[in-house]
Amino acid sequence: MPDHPSATPELSTIEFWFDLSSNYSYLSVMRIEAAAAAHGKRVIWRPFLLGPVFKALGWADAPFILQKEKGEYVWHDMVRLCRKYGLPWVKPSSFPRRALLPTRVALIGCDREWGPAFCKQIMQLNFAEDRDVDSVDVVEDVLNELGLPALDLIGAAESHQNKLLLRERTELARRKAIFGAPTFFVGSEMFWGNDRLDDALTFTPA
Amino acid sequence: MPDHPSATPELSTIEFWFDLSSNYSYLSVMRIEAAAAAHGKRVIWRPFLLGPVFKALGWADAPFILQKEKGEYVWHDMVRLCRKYGLPWVKPSSFPRRALLPTRVALIGCDREWGPAFCKQIMQLNFAEDRDVDSVDVVEDVLNELGLPALDLIGAAESHQNKLLLRERTELARRKAIFGAPTFFVGSEMFWGNDRLDDALTFTPA
Repeated sequence: MPDHPSATPELSTIEFWFDLSSNYSYLSVMRIEAAAAAHGKRVIWRPFLLGPVFKALGWADAPFILQKEKGEYVWHDMVRLCRKYGLPWVKPSSFPRRALLPTRVALIGCDREWGPAFCKQIMQLNFAEDRDVDSVDVVEDVLNELGLPALDLIGAAESHQNKLLLRERTELARRKAIFGAPTFFVGSEMFWGNDRLDDALTFTPA
Repeated sequence: MPDHPSATPELSTIEFWFDLSSNYSYLSVMRIEAAAAAHGKRVIWRPFLLGPVFKALGWADAPFILQKEKGEYVWHDMVRLCRKYGLPWVKPSSFPRRALLPTRVALIGCDREWGPAFCKQIMQLNFAEDRDVDSVDVVEDVLNELGLPALDLIGAAESHQNKLLLRERTELARRKAIFGAPTFFVGSEMFWGNDRLDDALTFTPA
């Protein structure tokens, strides 16, 4: 398991923590591969659930959901950023949309080669097609389209062992002092937010 | 008074709302003139007090002061960003540091040509030299160094009329839906945060 979370990533890799319900994670999921390749960095994908992290920090929800004025701005910001990056955008009719099943599947996929393609498709459905990505049917369709054994993988995703792995991932996020998504690590340096991706990719120790 | 806040700025100008106590405003105060010039934009400087805006929004303080984990990160982020922009940085021993007097003086200065130079010097003292910028002595020194009639200006800054003007500025910030600093406007488009300055400068309506 070369990408085990406890391994210290080298400076030639970027560790990418994201939540499939997070709109700013959507931007980074869609653009990180090209951006990292342009800087000769390998991406280590780390899907996780931000909700339990917020709860552990004593926040009832995402800061910009709790703060209405900031929330209004965020949706306008997303329109502009998607235009800037050339990404499609439809404001989800439900936000934050539950994405537990796809996150459990992504946990498996990101230890294999199909994780990024799966995550991109889930993000596309959530933030460009306003689909309920926590539905078994939707996840099954995505896996089938990728030519994968959908029912086997959904079974493995829902296994006790995999559920435990996701809880451990949340605990690791806490130990790494993550408080939002997306979050990037280059070595031990933490960068928070899609708008820090380029800083993370060009980071060199002082 | 060509820069009256109620005038709608044209797309060839960028309206720059900042708070002299705000660390991310420090970054923008120091770099906006060169950045705006590079894009052929004129800067309209709008000093204001973020504290009353937070209170009106029902927030007891800046979000990242209320949220300890985010706060820790912010100071590390500042070290990296100052390195990136080539700016000096010393974490203020008091934060957010009260800056009422310099803000009142800045309100006068930003309707005259010396406002930007005054604000940059106050920011330098606050965020690179850890000085108490709300002290009359400090403000007097800064004005003297700029060759200005310090005592007259401090008197004008503390006048009833100018205090009222600052309160009106806060109310205008509320009407414009500002919830943080720095905030930029290009036409009616609002951009929040130092990391949106470049997006604001390159903005063209859809």
